[in-house]
Amino acid sequence: MAKIAILGYGTVGSGIVEVLSQNADLIKRRAGEELEVKYILDIRDFPGDPWEDKVVHDIEVILNDPQISVVCETMGGEQPAFDFSKRALMAGKSVCTSNKELVANHGAELIALAAKHHCNYLFEASVGGGIPIIRPLISSLTAERVTEICGILNGTTNYILTKMQEERAPFGELLCRAQEKGYAERNPEADIEGYDACRKIAILGSLVTGKSVDYKEIYTEGISGITPEDFAYARVLGDTIKLLATVKEEKDGYLAAVAPALVSEQNPLSGIRNVFNAVFVRGNMQGETMYYGKGAGKLATASAVAADVIDCVKHQGKHVICLWEKEKIELKDFSGVKSRFFVRTAASDEKKAEELFGTVEKVRLDSLPQEFGFVTQEISEAEFQEKTKQLPGFVSRIRIKD
Amino acid sequence: MAKIAILGYGTVGSGIVEVLSQNADLIKRRAGEELEVKYILDIRDFPGDPWEDKVVHDIEVILNDPQISVVCETMGGEQPAFDFSKRALMAGKSVCTSNKELVANHGAELIALAAKHHCNYLFEASVGGGIPIIRPLISSLTAERVTEICGILNGTTNYILTKMQEERAPFGELLCRAQEKGYAERNPEADIEGYDACRKIAILGSLVTGKSVDYKEIYTEGISGITPEDFAYARVLGDTIKLLATVKEEKDGYLAAVAPALVSEQNPLSGIRNVFNAVFVRGNMQGETMYYGKGAGKLATASAVAADVIDCVKHQGKHVICLWEKEKIELKDFSGVKSRFFVRTAASDEKKAEELFGTVEKVRLDSLPQEFGFVTQEISEAEFQEKTKQLPGFVSRIRIKD
Repeated sequence: MAKIAILGYGTVGSGIVEVLSQNADLIKRRAGEELEVKYILDIRDFPGDPWEDKVVHDIEVILNDPQISVVCETMGGEQPAFDFSKRALMAGKSVCTSNKELVANHGAELIALAAKHHCNYLFEASVGGGIPIIRPLISSLTAERVTEICGILNGTTNYILTKMQEERAPFGELLCRAQEKGYAERNPEADIEGYDACRKIAILGSLVTGKSVDYKEIYTEGISGITPEDFAYARVLGDTIKLLATVKEEKDGYLAAVAPALVSEQNPLSGIRNVFNAVFVRGNMQGETMYYGKGAGKLATASAVAADVIDCVKHQGKHVICLWEKEKIELKDFSGVKSRFFVRTAASDEKKAEELFGTVEKVRLDSLPQEFGFVTQEISEAEFQEKTKQLPGFVSRIRIKD
Repeated sequence: MAKIAILGYGTVGSGIVEVLSQNADLIKRRAGEELEVKYILDIRDFPGDPWEDKVVHDIEVILNDPQISVVCETMGGEQPAFDFSKRALMAGKSVCTSNKELVANHGAELIALAAKHHCNYLFEASVGGGIPIIRPLISSLTAERVTEICGILNGTTNYILTKMQEERAPFGELLCRAQEKGYAERNPEADIEGYDACRKIAILGSLVTGKSVDYKEIYTEGISGITPEDFAYARVLGDTIKLLATVKEEKDGYLAAVAPALVSEQNPLSGIRNVFNAVFVRGNMQGETMYYGKGAGKLATASAVAADVIDCVKHQGKHVICLWEKEKIELKDFSGVKSRFFVRTAASDEKKAEELFGTVEKVRLDSLPQEFGFVTQEISEAEFQEKTKQLPGFVSRIRIKD
């Protein structure tokens, strides 16, 4: 019998209890032994809750109990989650988490600590909630040199973009609807501005490079500037618009970015709708693979943490290799990164646009006679900025996914 | 240093050598030690091949060498692959295979043998080539009760169906083109008639149920009867046609089937194009996940076998639990399985169709005035057969994916 402790009895923490009880029989067979939740750490009491007698308020009870072999950290935030995780690992207890903030900031350090103490620090639920993506990366694509990861990693923004595409409604209205449905937070900035996706791609990038991708260095742009008119142009081009989080190995280094992009209907990412997430991976042997599922949700996330717990139980006393060193990987300067752009500018800029960008493919909408759109050749961010400064009627631009 | 042997130096076998050499550095770091191919078993010699000095003709050399810890079986077919695999496992050597025939027929027995001898029998490459699907099922979805698997598991048929959809060309012409491109065998029956997909869904069904799904008991129907007219109707319905391999837990037992079906454009499987494969999985906690990639191909398949080899190296002397017992699972009698059907019949059958099936949604094509199509309510296979016998102008039917 393996005994586990859960730190934080919120949405995910209580979901783990639910998953472990509801699927107890098959989990027992797959783990090779029964799993018992011995403690639930929370500052609150839960009178009347069927698990109220498991609730403790003092982390020392858990850390000092030699029976506890696995700890689920579902508190979120930096502290005290970081401190508790470190101390659990130092006591030889494996830690499984859904805390992307902590993993993005301290993944390398916590994995090293786990290795030193012959236990594991697992974080499947920190990226893509219910999508198995971390384990495929570190256990299935082990013979691959992964050269690109491109993901739709945030459900809120994908819901809004899907509805903009399908219902032609404006951003503000859809954000309100997402909030009403509980898909978006009251303060939606972390989702809308791409910060959430940025933490997640930093984690995936670190696993792919084996070093630390600092999320603070990733170029990040959100979707609040996307309008129904952008979708009207996208439709003419046979594209849709998605918020893409990318890490890519190029000849001269790794590029990382989070930004909305025009995605062709032929690209499998274009069909990912509503709150679903997907991660596209390119390897040097297998070519393209893609992983799709719910990016969030109580039980989906809890099931991912529970799967990590089972993995820890199967590997008691043995650290499973996960290459993520503390050394920071230097990302390519974003101003040098090249893309093709779709540009909207005033109808009066037509001559100037050709002068600056050469002969370009033009797109016109009957509903917007005062402007036109065009697609540029591949051009660096810096060069593009310089040139668009010279377009007096410049409206907006969006990158095109290659 | 872990020493491995490869049985069969054909497409996949030589691909493994290529993957292991080309990605040697990162494989070494991920496995925790270097991997060396010590022997390649083949009846042929390979003069001039850079690996010709590794080639041996006698399996005993491999079985009797205590240095060999992992054997890759890429011979295909039942014998001598089965015999060699058994003997390797009995000698405590893990076996990694791409041989779906052998896995579908003897998976349970070979896994039990591996457990007994503290080694592993792994077969990621046997289903979906380069798509990580086996490991996600047995290592990531461990906290899930999987209630449905529905996959596009054959690249040849998906290529033909994609082209029928997009180019409106007939089956025979596309089969020839697939053969020219090397996507289809000279004798394409195993692909076209669904036998290949049937083996693969039997393997996935066994892993999900933990017992043995006998592929001979799975209802299997191929795509040779699908015509451009069927696609014309599908377009009107907002659907496409895919060859789906399904295992599903229903209230009264498991159903398993391979058959073409109308798939709604909203279903993520509808967007899987050309030779790509995808596996959709429904769990009781995580809901829907999907796995997408190349279903075949030398390096994609070889990379999957190589990942299994790395897993074996990381677990030397330790059997990793894989629940697949020899006991056969009883599948639901297919005649009792219920579906909605799309039926094509003569225009003169209109009254009879309504008499038999009640008020039905009718679809007419200008190009086919002599017939019409309609969608039935949910109805059992047996009842459907009985009723269509009474339609004198019956043309064809196709099931509708729910």
